[in-house]
Amino acid sequence: MKRSVLALIAGAAVAGVLASTSPGSGASDEATAPIYGIKIPAGYRDWKLISVAHEEGNLNDFRAILGNDEAVRAFRENKIPFPDGTIIARLAWKYVASEENNKVFGRPQSFVAGPPINVQLLVKDSRKYAATEGWGFAQFTNGKPDGEAIHKTCLPCHEPAKARDLVFTRYAP
Amino acid sequence: MKRSVLALIAGAAVAGVLASTSPGSGASDEATAPIYGIKIPAGYRDWKLISVAHEEGNLNDFRAILGNDEAVRAFRENKIPFPDGTIIARLAWKYVASEENNKVFGRPQSFVAGPPINVQLLVKDSRKYAATEGWGFAQFTNGKPDGEAIHKTCLPCHEPAKARDLVFTRYAP
Repeated sequence: MKRSVLALIAGAAVAGVLASTSPGSGASDEATAPIYGIKIPAGYRDWKLISVAHEEGNLNDFRAILGNDEAVRAFRENKIPFPDGTIIARLAWKYVASEENNKVFGRPQSFVAGPPINVQLLVKDSRKYAATEGWGFAQFTNGKPDGEAIHKTCLPCHEPAKARDLVFTRYAP
Repeated sequence: MKRSVLALIAGAAVAGVLASTSPGSGASDEATAPIYGIKIPAGYRDWKLISVAHEEGNLNDFRAILGNDEAVRAFRENKIPFPDGTIIARLAWKYVASEENNKVFGRPQSFVAGPPINVQLLVKDSRKYAATEGWGFAQFTNGKPDGEAIHKTCLPCHEPAKARDLVFTRYAP
């Protein structure tokens, strides 16, 4: 009983976050990612930094992983599983050489974030997303949600991180 | 007159920030970086993300550039020169391959932030640091300021970015 009330409260909190991110107009379908029904949370670009990453190969990107307060607290306290209300945002930019920086260093060694590629979100709601280990997934390109096919790939890709509640990123102090 | 009053206020604001970061005890020398007299600002790890970078070669690091509110506002509004009160923090970690991520991607392509290397600060105070283009510089390793020799290298290294008020980093949207 107590647990279900807590789940309700947590669910309501997440719903509140998501509702607050819907556009002012009634037509919100275009802003909602498929399958998990997630919108881009307002102010996510101001969230705290969890860590950074770089993928070579076809991705060839620079990544920053940001989190809302629930996410950052959980990372810092090593809380697994992450609590309901956690939202993790993975921002990716093109990985580009900085000629300007290379001149200063006197050799080609400097890489910086180029144009944005996309933003991925991990939203924890153990009730709403009970069928997918408590996580909802979303990907946005140029502020618009990507298609259903992309969103079907999220869960299987994250499954190998099951021991860490499907989250690959570790906190960078 | 108006300008000097503003400078005084801004100077006081910066002094406030720095004073608030001094340790509780009276002995603060150990926490103060040489030449520019800068301490690590409280809560800098919670600041907003400006961008990320990677240096190859001897540095071989991952970088995140964070800023206080004045810094982030100036970056977003393309304000050059940066206003007094701006503090930019450059965090560096070792650049390490992630075996865990590589398994998921099926090839060696993933790099993440490893153990921390050091933290550099850029503090804008056009009055206090008038002799160094308005910027004070500091570097901390394991929370302790590095020596005077290191701090003498900051200004000449940043000089090539004179057109952008000595700041190399550009805002990643």
